[in-house]
Amino acid sequence: MIVRSMVFLKNKSLITTQEWSKDELEYVLNKAFELKKTFKKGRYNIHKKLEGYTLIMLFFSPSTRTRNSFEVGMTQLGGHAIYIDADKSWVGRKSESIKDTAKVLSRYADAIGIRIFPNVVKWKYGEANRIIREFEKFSEIPIINFEDDLYHPCQALSDIMTIKEKVNNLKNKKFVISWAYHPRPLPVSVPNSTLLATTRFGLDVTLVHPPGFELDDKIINIAKKNASKNGSSFEITNTLEDAYAGADIVYVKSWGSLKEYGNPQKEKKLRIPYRENWICNDQLMDLTNKNSFFMHCMPIRRNVIATDSVCDGAHSIIYDQAENRLHLQKGLLVSILQS
Amino acid sequence: MIVRSMVFLKNKSLITTQEWSKDELEYVLNKAFELKKTFKKGRYNIHKKLEGYTLIMLFFSPSTRTRNSFEVGMTQLGGHAIYIDADKSWVGRKSESIKDTAKVLSRYADAIGIRIFPNVVKWKYGEANRIIREFEKFSEIPIINFEDDLYHPCQALSDIMTIKEKVNNLKNKKFVISWAYHPRPLPVSVPNSTLLATTRFGLDVTLVHPPGFELDDKIINIAKKNASKNGSSFEITNTLEDAYAGADIVYVKSWGSLKEYGNPQKEKKLRIPYRENWICNDQLMDLTNKNSFFMHCMPIRRNVIATDSVCDGAHSIIYDQAENRLHLQKGLLVSILQS
Amino acid sequence: MIVRSMVFLKNKSLITTQEWSKDELEYVLNKAFELKKTFKKGRYNIHKKLEGYTLIMLFFSPSTRTRNSFEVGMTQLGGHAIYIDADKSWVGRKSESIKDTAKVLSRYADAIGIRIFPNVVKWKYGEANRIIREFEKFSEIPIINFEDDLYHPCQALSDIMTIKEKVNNLKNKKFVISWAYHPRPLPVSVPNSTLLATTRFGLDVTLVHPPGFELDDKIINIAKKNASKNGSSFEITNTLEDAYAGADIVYVKSWGSLKEYGNPQKEKKLRIPYRENWICNDQLMDLTNKNSFFMHCMPIRRNVIATDSVCDGAHSIIYDQAENRLHLQKGLLVSILQS
Repeated sequence: MIVRSMVFLKNKSLITTQEWSKDELEYVLNKAFELKKTFKKGRYNIHKKLEGYTLIMLFFSPSTRTRNSFEVGMTQLGGHAIYIDADKSWVGRKSESIKDTAKVLSRYADAIGIRIFPNVVKWKYGEANRIIREFEKFSEIPIINFEDDLYHPCQALSDIMTIKEKVNNLKNKKFVISWAYHPRPLPVSVPNSTLLATTRFGLDVTLVHPPGFELDDKIINIAKKNASKNGSSFEITNTLEDAYAGADIVYVKSWGSLKEYGNPQKEKKLRIPYRENWICNDQLMDLTNKNSFFMHCMPIRRNVIATDSVCDGAHSIIYDQAENRLHLQKGLLVSILQS
Repeated sequence: MIVRSMVFLKNKSLITTQEWSKDELEYVLNKAFELKKTFKKGRYNIHKKLEGYTLIMLFFSPSTRTRNSFEVGMTQLGGHAIYIDADKSWVGRKSESIKDTAKVLSRYADAIGIRIFPNVVKWKYGEANRIIREFEKFSEIPIINFEDDLYHPCQALSDIMTIKEKVNNLKNKKFVISWAYHPRPLPVSVPNSTLLATTRFGLDVTLVHPPGFELDDKIINIAKKNASKNGSSFEITNTLEDAYAGADIVYVKSWGSLKEYGNPQKEKKLRIPYRENWICNDQLMDLTNKNSFFMHCMPIRRNVIATDSVCDGAHSIIYDQAENRLHLQKGLLVSILQS
Repeated sequence: MIVRSMVFLKNKSLITTQEWSKDELEYVLNKAFELKKTFKKGRYNIHKKLEGYTLIMLFFSPSTRTRNSFEVGMTQLGGHAIYIDADKSWVGRKSESIKDTAKVLSRYADAIGIRIFPNVVKWKYGEANRIIREFEKFSEIPIINFEDDLYHPCQALSDIMTIKEKVNNLKNKKFVISWAYHPRPLPVSVPNSTLLATTRFGLDVTLVHPPGFELDDKIINIAKKNASKNGSSFEITNTLEDAYAGADIVYVKSWGSLKEYGNPQKEKKLRIPYRENWICNDQLMDLTNKNSFFMHCMPIRRNVIATDSVCDGAHSIIYDQAENRLHLQKGLLVSILQS
């Protein structure tokens, strides 16, 4: 008989999934499935688990899914989310240290979510993550990473939830993370977090990108260890056709080259050659398994990242991914505030 | 015996009142009166009809009444309204299509309100309305027009509520919509929606404006049909005195000339000659019936649109109009989310 | 037997504490202590005293504590706070008078908080306060001063609450308000309100600042009268050592010189000479009583206003001050909305 280790998530911050045990992640996923099952839009069965609770959301960068799913989620749980446009507060100004802001908000609220994109920290690699970790160091309430320059854990966990819904048994299903062209260099947070999460849930992961778009070695090494520890595989290729062949799930995402990180002009030159071919289209999807799934975290630049026919086609589960942000994060909030 | 047709408003969008049947509009009005009657500020009898529900409010343009009345209304119904400054989200950016935004928000929230003024769409006539309709096309939850470049249905319906409160029987009361001077060209949404709504509720409508400030022919034709169908009259004049004479209600509003739509310099030349005389003052109000009412949707530029003595005088019901935004919209929300 | 005069706070605005009786202030403080005692974060005992109520918060200036403590407070009381970035509304624009805004918001909400800093009114002394008073004149619901150019009453009252928690008997405890250097000229609202509040609660107050940084004579005169009426003392000195000697509480705060109010360049010349010495450090704190307290309203520019060792040291109660904003304001809201 196997007894799962006890899970105590109360007050635990989520900066990256890698710092959480598998049991802890499964706990949140189970909580999310449970909340989703007993909730039916239009016939509201409101969960008052977080009545009186406040989540403060600090946005240094724009958001559609993250902001709305968290704010709706808190409402459905009976609590409230405060949206803060960081430009309109003292946060990040010289007049107040992160320590002081974290200490003070801890006295009012019950959790803090923070989003900081690379441009906010002038493309100093890892600086956005460092800021979130500095908040976490001084905060007395849990910090949730709403996406920084390294990680997007809420997205990755929501995607695991979606995959679990669509695929009966994740074990050794072929999961492809494919780079795509985009007119501007985008952060590596989503591919990083997707890699880190999927390699822990038994999927056989293939990462495909053009030469020059390698992800951070540290992330790659952790992903490799995750895979070997979980009896699955992890491969990297530069050939789209090899990657798509026989795939059960294709997760498409653009990201900027780390080689010219923060130099948009030079970086652009690296990206331009792949403009024509690195788009997910029907021909590529035809190489996958018949019942395969197309995933993207959105927002998705249509007919650049993927064609309309893929986005709107039978393989696409992008809106389910977006919806599960709501459910997964409700599970997360209940877990770290009440468990 | 007359049996009213059954009304099913669940999930119905409100883009313009003209697309709703009279019975549907009356249903919302009745619901609003009912909520207003059982609610007493300061001794809160909160209606929990929308507990757990979220209204997402997308503002591309500024607001005082619309935003606050909807947000207070959702609170009084037990739900929540999310205020989104469109500049701070992905909405309207190239990175995400309206389709995708509408589909995603539909997974989280229960209704979406959208405000877009003409300047946001660079004065391309009808473009703001087209955007709202594109949202409506893809949304799985009801869309409420919070004012676009053609319509302001929540204002018009609230005004009908106010008129019903003030005037016992609307049948053949003289209702005047009067143009007024304003230093900038304002949208035609309010005069359009006022025309379309009042001509369906039995009022004898007189539209008065200087030459060159004609409203859209399409709107005028629908208003005429509305009036003839409802056994009332609809007239247009260029003479203020004729319009005000014997009026029961005077609704004053400025709008820009459609002849030079989007050309502020040329448009201004059309407007300037009417600066002195096209202001609602006591002399004009003296031409109306003794117990007549002065209406304006606000914000009102005092002593430009109307004199202080009119705004603050015995005829004025502008604050009641503003208040009824709250009650009418609560009736609307309950109707489209729960009926 | 002493019978306290009855207190009726329902619908009372708070512009400055000076316009409230001592009994009224004590009423709010007692309500705040009561709410704090029965509330325990993490094990939510939500007070539904303000269910369905809305506080509209008009911010013309940035905020961390004020906004979050009020918004969290309303949530914990079962109500809702609307955050309005004044730039995104009609408020303050030519198109709508303050009268009209106040009248309209009164029809929707239950209280209005307003923050306006001196820069918003181009450093016209007293103009921000005048605007808030104009709102109050026309509003039918209570107005709360969220900090203007003269007063910050919520801060001052919260600080009294904190002092009461830390010091058993306030009578004749030495309370020092010390100026400090800061790179920009800051408003006088906090020193003004601190002076006005502390001199009414029995503290012996010493105000210390360099020559040229005198506060408004009117405020000083009222503070003197407050002190003499309450059997305590009020002194002004230019010597830091005299002030700190034997102090029970040191409240440090920077403010700009009124002599060159609104002339940042000239004002800076007055401030620069005091850059080195007018910082609160361990040496100065060593002159105070052993169990003395260090206070600041935050945000605090560390190592400019006070050293890290003071901010983080044993004397410091700055986070307790910040926390009590929440409790005091909940007491205030309940008092003016329900008492």
